Amino acid sequence: MKDLLKKVQTPEQLKELNIKQKEELAKILRQEVLETVSKTGGHLASNLGVVELTIALHSSFNAPQDKIIWDVGHQTYIHKMLTGRRNKMDTLRKLDGISGFPKGAESEYDCFETGHSSTSISAALGMARARDIKKEDYNVVAVIGDGALTGGMALEALNDAGCSKTNLIVVLNDNEMSISKNVGGISAFLTKLRLRRDYEKSNEYVKKIVNKLPGDAGDKIINFVRKVKRGLKQLIIPNMLFEELGFCYLGPVDGHNIEKLEDIFRKAKIQSKEGPVLVHVLTKKGKGYIPAEANPDSFHSTSGFNIISGESDKPKRKDYSKAFGEALVNLAEKNDKIVAITAAMKDGTGLTEFSKKFPNRFFDVGIAEQHALTMAAGMAKEGLKPVVSIYSSFYQRGYDQVIHDIAMQNLPVVLCVDRAGIVGNDGETHQGIFDLAFFNLVPNLQILAPKNFEELSKMLKYALEQNSPVVIRYPRGGEENIFTKKCKEITLGKAEILKKGKDITILAIGKMVSKAQKIAKSLQEKEIHAEVINARFLKPLDAQTIIKSVLKTKKIITIEDGIMQGGLATLTLECLAKENLEKTFIKSYGYPTEFIKHGKVEEIEKLYGLDEETIKNYIIQYFEKEN
Amino acid sequence: MKDLLKKVQTPEQLKELNIKQKEELAKILRQEVLETVSKTGGHLASNLGVVELTIALHSSFNAPQDKIIWDVGHQTYIHKMLTGRRNKMDTLRKLDGISGFPKGAESEYDCFETGHSSTSISAALGMARARDIKKEDYNVVAVIGDGALTGGMALEALNDAGCSKTNLIVVLNDNEMSISKNVGGISAFLTKLRLRRDYEKSNEYVKKIVNKLPGDAGDKIINFVRKVKRGLKQLIIPNMLFEELGFCYLGPVDGHNIEKLEDIFRKAKIQSKEGPVLVHVLTKKGKGYIPAEANPDSFHSTSGFNIISGESDKPKRKDYSKAFGEALVNLAEKNDKIVAITAAMKDGTGLTEFSKKFPNRFFDVGIAEQHALTMAAGMAKEGLKPVVSIYSSFYQRGYDQVIHDIAMQNLPVVLCVDRAGIVGNDGETHQGIFDLAFFNLVPNLQILAPKNFEELSKMLKYALEQNSPVVIRYPRGGEENIFTKKCKEITLGKAEILKKGKDITILAIGKMVSKAQKIAKSLQEKEIHAEVINARFLKPLDAQTIIKSVLKTKKIITIEDGIMQGGLATLTLECLAKENLEKTFIKSYGYPTEFIKHGKVEEIEKLYGLDEETIKNYIIQYFEKEN
Repeated sequence: MKDLLKKVQTPEQLKELNIKQKEELAKILRQEVLETVSKTGGHLASNLGVVELTIALHSSFNAPQDKIIWDVGHQTYIHKMLTGRRNKMDTLRKLDGISGFPKGAESEYDCFETGHSSTSISAALGMARARDIKKEDYNVVAVIGDGALTGGMALEALNDAGCSKTNLIVVLNDNEMSISKNVGGISAFLTKLRLRRDYEKSNEYVKKIVNKLPGDAGDKIINFVRKVKRGLKQLIIPNMLFEELGFCYLGPVDGHNIEKLEDIFRKAKIQSKEGPVLVHVLTKKGKGYIPAEANPDSFHSTSGFNIISGESDKPKRKDYSKAFGEALVNLAEKNDKIVAITAAMKDGTGLTEFSKKFPNRFFDVGIAEQHALTMAAGMAKEGLKPVVSIYSSFYQRGYDQVIHDIAMQNLPVVLCVDRAGIVGNDGETHQGIFDLAFFNLVPNLQILAPKNFEELSKMLKYALEQNSPVVIRYPRGGEENIFTKKCKEITLGKAEILKKGKDITILAIGKMVSKAQKIAKSLQEKEIHAEVINARFLKPLDAQTIIKSVLKTKKIITIEDGIMQGGLATLTLECLAKENLEKTFIKSYGYPTEFIKHGKVEEIEKLYGLDEETIKNYIIQYFEKEN
Repeated sequence: MKDLLKKVQTPEQLKELNIKQKEELAKILRQEVLETVSKTGGHLASNLGVVELTIALHSSFNAPQDKIIWDVGHQTYIHKMLTGRRNKMDTLRKLDGISGFPKGAESEYDCFETGHSSTSISAALGMARARDIKKEDYNVVAVIGDGALTGGMALEALNDAGCSKTNLIVVLNDNEMSISKNVGGISAFLTKLRLRRDYEKSNEYVKKIVNKLPGDAGDKIINFVRKVKRGLKQLIIPNMLFEELGFCYLGPVDGHNIEKLEDIFRKAKIQSKEGPVLVHVLTKKGKGYIPAEANPDSFHSTSGFNIISGESDKPKRKDYSKAFGEALVNLAEKNDKIVAITAAMKDGTGLTEFSKKFPNRFFDVGIAEQHALTMAAGMAKEGLKPVVSIYSSFYQRGYDQVIHDIAMQNLPVVLCVDRAGIVGNDGETHQGIFDLAFFNLVPNLQILAPKNFEELSKMLKYALEQNSPVVIRYPRGGEENIFTKKCKEITLGKAEILKKGKDITILAIGKMVSKAQKIAKSLQEKEIHAEVINARFLKPLDAQTIIKSVLKTKKIITIEDGIMQGGLATLTLECLAKENLEKTFIKSYGYPTEFIKHGKVEEIEKLYGLDEETIKNYIIQYFEKEN
């Protein structure tokens, strides 16, 4: 049998198996995904949690005709293995290999690309409505986690879908993490309900009817009524939220029992002909791998690791997130107005320590960037010093809130942009290449990027002293700290000259400053004396320092870790034009306005000519041609 | 008494009145706001609906110490009249006059600025948490309409607030418009509930207990149980959604009864010490003014009108929204794949006709831009041709969805940007000056802007033929159609030369093209021969045509109705730099990267030097200096 199961690569082959075989297959796939991720790194806990769910979905539905949309999309490894990609899993998240997220170009089974949270119900509803308009007949299934359900757009979609009467199945993959909050809310509700006036009224109502009853049924009747009420409440309440929105609620069902899952999906298919259905599935993150079950957070997104010990291959280097967290804790110890806010990225943004030290000043609002930012505006308005930390690509979710609620009122919120620039293996959906450009368009913002941890700490201190909003952006991963001198204090709109030189100006920002410095060093060997400027501020850009340097060197190279359009490249050009220095030679390095695929950061940098070697050689050749 | 009431200008004065006097004041204020808006134009129906609510709020709470945050903010006219601005209402929405939205600079009673929907609960929660951290003691009240409650960020905030245990009061101003959908959902829920298995179980449970009951209570008992159940459901259900999220629910209360409102706010203040409270207030839009009651939509936002007839002062000119709607209906008649989507802007975006003609192909998803856009992506993925129409400044709410869900998958969604550029009297929060720049950063997008209605229609046709996403942006209001020639077909990335000339190139986009043409005409009298280029595409910009023209004229003026940064100004500069034409003289007209205040469109244009006179004079002086 094992041989047979090793070959299962398509939903058709899967459908030929009996339940026993499917259960066996689950074990094998779980082992395979564990082995894969232990080598490639990636999202482990969530994938281990959906092995049976994925098997049951592909057994019960007919993809690709039926559409299965995976919210967030990082839990699709099993799905990929069962849709023709089982043999390619060793290339997972590698350059030109299988993506860690659904990709239409990889497979027709990846019917909608995801990456950011909470999009699946909207996309599924769009597909279902398209099917209705085309008068076709197939199922549309959105698989969404309980965490993703706190995202506003998922709630917008639920609200719309609930009154749509269309055939749509939402599978709520409840891994008992954030939904526990809701459960808490419900039990609190019950307590309150008992205290409420309306409820009192209902008791009076009951008493009134009781009095009208014949005979001496008396106490027993009242007892009976009490029991009925309790029973009713328990029956009504858990599914109430969804039913109230217009969904038929099925479940909860054990998400690791394939037979039960197939059974409930069968029911859902029938029921959904009447309108939208929500299937509540209970799963366990990390299921079947003890270290991941015990610590699903660490195995949410992991680098390679030793399967037996569960320990990471790489010794954990200090990264920018941690440096930010430490710096913030230090500042918060001295200033009790400082509060930290994140949107379900506590660990990822380095705020764990802060949340332990200052639990009353830490707010994780769930996957809700919009709310996080406007709440910060409210706090700033009342005199606090809110520091929001969100990943670069997720700030796209809160663009209006930054413009309309923070910048328009010029409120002193510190906007920390983690995972800025190329993030590497997560690829297109998570590359933080747009933030410099889109924040640059927002009035009243200052935008800073540090060259190393020490500068980040100084920038954070500076930002908290401002009376207006400040963006600080920094990359995923560690610093490349080649700087020996102590970091100078931050001054509004002031760049820093790291190395004097007469031949060419190299202007860089953020993590690219160390590249600039290294390039300048190696140019020295060729007798090319480059002046290195650490921009520090993208906005306001230090035009004075740049102009002064360029008047000397007549040549400028800009290097940034984002799209050139609207970033350092464009600003430098505008700055030169304003000074009528248009004849200056300018060459810019950064990313084109494109979506950038996955691969190691160094690989991507090389691919786009952003590695030191390429830039250095370009400059050397330029000088050779000139002479 | 009337004299006394005419003088009430502050909450303190208001608090001295008795209920009778307050009721009288309500009548007077209602008349005053009616008279004001009939002259100035503005939001009428919503303000007439909250007269008593505003009086009760300012009677019950102690602003500005207590914070009252008005969601959307266009219903704050009464609030303004009661907080020191009653004498200035004749300047409402006028240049340098009182804003139609809360503004901190106007009054300390405007504690948080609003304009876009669904922000109030987030801001209020931020303020409440700030108060808790500062260990201060005051009330925070968010006043939010039922429509705004469909916005994802309001739901994110409710979810977070519900488990916050903080002292927060949310006043749900339910004017029975969109909440009716929810009510529909609830009654649908009850129907479904009866059919459900779990419910069956509860009946079995009841029967089991009944069987255990002594004597022959029989049928009567079963009847009784049925009644109890019905009663319970009715009691539990309406407030369930909020209670489930952790709010204490109070109401519903008649929103036009000041005494009852004051009473419920008193209770809310006590109750909120235990945690967040939601007060459900029922109001009527347009209350007290028959034409507005009968037709609240037309009196939502109105120009000046005749109070007696209810008819608008201005004869209704055809505007871009209507032109768009008509063009879309024409195209949709020939192509049944075309669907239209909007987010609570059906009338405003000109889609009413479409919704009547093609009810099955029209989707108004409520105030939910994020969901609207990703749903469109789902539809496009399944072969439909979705056309989304949303106001420019509200696209900021869906930026991530445009990037991550539409552009990344290169899906053919047509993104119509209504109210682009300066919108006039609504001011800062609604100016559509950022869209060209922020969309310009998104890969795979084409961006077009028409010079008149006819060109809009051609662009829409063109956009629907593309296999990738297309943005079309157009202004609020009517066309200035000075173009006599029939509009040429749209070709990818091709500009249109409207007038040949050798002396200077004037490059304009969208509504600014007619200005360019008029300027060129009047320059003719001064023997200056301008070449006028209608850009048509911002992205891809027609570099070839621009370069060719500039090689001839050596001078270029750009004119756009948005911020220059990242728009036509920046792109033209980059385009010239690429061709080493840096020595070309370039002067750009557009807005600085600032928030632009309210005033008539022409006034704002004049203020920023974007009127024909200023531009023309600049050019004339330039040529005078040159010669």
